[in-house]
Amino acid sequence: MAQSLPRSPLAPASFPALPVIGGVRFAAAAAGVKYQGRTDVMLAQLDPGSSVAGVFTRSATRSAPVLDCQSKLGGAPDTGAAILVNSGNSNAFTGHYGQTSVAEITAAVAEATGVPQSRVFTASTGVIGEPLPHDRIVAKIDELKSGLAENRLEDAAEAIMTTDTFAKGATAQVEIDGKTVSIAGIAKGSGMIAPDMATMLVYIFTDAAYEQTALQNLLSGLNDRSFNCITVDSDTSTSDSLLLCATGASGVDATGNAAFADALNTVMLDLAHQVVRDGEGASKFVEVQVTGAASEQDAKIHGLAIANSPLVKTAIAGEDPNWGRVVMAIGKSGAAADRDLLSIWFGDVLVAEKGWVSPDYREEDAAKLMKQNDILIRVDLGLGDGKSTVWTCDLTHQYIEINADYRS
Amino acid sequence: MAQSLPRSPLAPASFPALPVIGGVRFAAAAAGVKYQGRTDVMLAQLDPGSSVAGVFTRSATRSAPVLDCQSKLGGAPDTGAAILVNSGNSNAFTGHYGQTSVAEITAAVAEATGVPQSRVFTASTGVIGEPLPHDRIVAKIDELKSGLAENRLEDAAEAIMTTDTFAKGATAQVEIDGKTVSIAGIAKGSGMIAPDMATMLVYIFTDAAYEQTALQNLLSGLNDRSFNCITVDSDTSTSDSLLLCATGASGVDATGNAAFADALNTVMLDLAHQVVRDGEGASKFVEVQVTGAASEQDAKIHGLAIANSPLVKTAIAGEDPNWGRVVMAIGKSGAAADRDLLSIWFGDVLVAEKGWVSPDYREEDAAKLMKQNDILIRVDLGLGDGKSTVWTCDLTHQYIEINADYRS
Repeated sequence: MAQSLPRSPLAPASFPALPVIGGVRFAAAAAGVKYQGRTDVMLAQLDPGSSVAGVFTRSATRSAPVLDCQSKLGGAPDTGAAILVNSGNSNAFTGHYGQTSVAEITAAVAEATGVPQSRVFTASTGVIGEPLPHDRIVAKIDELKSGLAENRLEDAAEAIMTTDTFAKGATAQVEIDGKTVSIAGIAKGSGMIAPDMATMLVYIFTDAAYEQTALQNLLSGLNDRSFNCITVDSDTSTSDSLLLCATGASGVDATGNAAFADALNTVMLDLAHQVVRDGEGASKFVEVQVTGAASEQDAKIHGLAIANSPLVKTAIAGEDPNWGRVVMAIGKSGAAADRDLLSIWFGDVLVAEKGWVSPDYREEDAAKLMKQNDILIRVDLGLGDGKSTVWTCDLTHQYIEINADYRS
Repeated sequence: MAQSLPRSPLAPASFPALPVIGGVRFAAAAAGVKYQGRTDVMLAQLDPGSSVAGVFTRSATRSAPVLDCQSKLGGAPDTGAAILVNSGNSNAFTGHYGQTSVAEITAAVAEATGVPQSRVFTASTGVIGEPLPHDRIVAKIDELKSGLAENRLEDAAEAIMTTDTFAKGATAQVEIDGKTVSIAGIAKGSGMIAPDMATMLVYIFTDAAYEQTALQNLLSGLNDRSFNCITVDSDTSTSDSLLLCATGASGVDATGNAAFADALNTVMLDLAHQVVRDGEGASKFVEVQVTGAASEQDAKIHGLAIANSPLVKTAIAGEDPNWGRVVMAIGKSGAAADRDLLSIWFGDVLVAEKGWVSPDYREEDAAKLMKQNDILIRVDLGLGDGKSTVWTCDLTHQYIEINADYRS
């Protein structure tokens, strides 16, 4: 089914050329967890000295691999680490059997790689509630181990796809103390790409050194302004996972470096936007900028209310500059708003101000903007300094087709 | 456009026979606010002694008529009251002009009926952000006044429709002290029936007497378990209004009477369910029962998370017993849940328990249930005594057609 969906019209022209990240090697294999005729499992092995930070879904029904990863974060970097990810089965809501699967896989990876089991991280993405056939994965671990190579990150990106219509990668480089530090990351999924249950998985690697606790703080902060600011359909996965690994192979310690944080932010936003551009049925990429809110939190609440509104999303799909629905979404969000202080723009077109349609507004101006692939909605609340930007896609017939007409 | 939509497959067979409610008379007229060839304005006039209670949208961008009604509630019942409602234009986000329209209409109704302007309630439903042509309504008030009759509540129900596919009415009678008290109500709309902006309007009348403050408390309490427990698409209108009017014409004071509250609850649930059954594009009526939650509030949060999930709603549209999506919705809701204490049923079929699919579950049993028009999803959290029931419909291609393919 993944193969039958056409490539998203919002996809980048091609997968980017990713630099080699010293200190980490990758492999992919076809274990036949669910899909046939394609790779479905990836392994990454990190050299000793690598720091690993992670953020995960806050779902109360999160999967066994997520719970296992969360318990392992913050371990000693001097032992190296490994990451094993499979597609086709999310190992979510699989009871105690789910924990057994994680234990079997992490034990086998530890044995093959020499990495302690407490530093083997896993993720699973795909159908929910079915036992993970972990034996098929365990049977492939020697093959994965022997296939490890520095230049196989793109292979890894392909192996973790479910109903993604394109593999997602991003990269940045930054000069620190006259030396080049590289960052490369991959992602899969979107709000609810999988026919059963969405999972968004992201893996980012850098050859910078970075102190463990500081790396976790950096990641959590940037995550709040990138992956936590995208939405396809407001449904939260049980498996969302993002790992950031700093190998230190460049010999440069980037801890606290502002340029490194900027470069990492660029990579994270790039991957986050690619996830939205591959949103189920997406035909428009939508940026919602909220300013003038009473607080940053309020700005994000308003932004997500607009981005998650089925009426706003269907209007965008219909290329209809229906600003009344934006007013409605702001009104329902629960965050502070004053009708008479509100201003709304589509792109550069001022649509509404002072509690009513702008006197200079001509619908044909906004209608023209709505025909573009990338849509900008700007809202100023006129209340304070709070601001936030979130990203989403439109809601189309293809979303219904993917989620209703196909049987899981 | 309203006329072009087929009658919902979930609609009742016919409009119910409504009893006459002493003390209130109704009229409808064609003012041509937006629609042609149909009625679009209704007037109800209540005799002196009538109590009027109301609940309204909590939207921060609520319409001028809603703000006006809220300021007028709790007035002296000895003067009578009037209600004027138009369809075709919601008079929402129309700035100060919106208040002028309300003032012009209420002044004209006051003059024609002899009811003080402070007891004239209005509502408007339809397109947002366009000036309400209130002159067209004012020009029809004499015709409305002379057309007032006790048996025209069905005419009123038809006049307030926008893209509703059927007029909605409900009734109940109850014996108090050997006398019969009647309740009759009408409603229009659903989550987002109108092409621009949803409005749900409900008017309920009884010939019981009921003390004003007690009536408001009764209404607010029942509303939390009826209209506040339905959702079509999670989008909240700027115009939702519900007025409950007790004329006292029966000579029976029902204040505090439990049987009356039960009967009123029946009428409110009936109307609320009809609104869901006319949800945009609905092909299934869905009841979500949540029990065993840590609190009643938590139960409602879980219920609404399930009922608003696009993935749950599309699965129902596809007749797919996709319980994994129910798990996902519970996990994301933010209310307390423990994966391993959770049980889920479709109808009477136990699907999942103890953190995994039930050992006795056979998908064909649940798949059979999903082919019915009315679907029951039951969830027990296993945490406490909190329970709540909410109602919704599925998410179908027709929802996208109504909201994206048609231009407003």
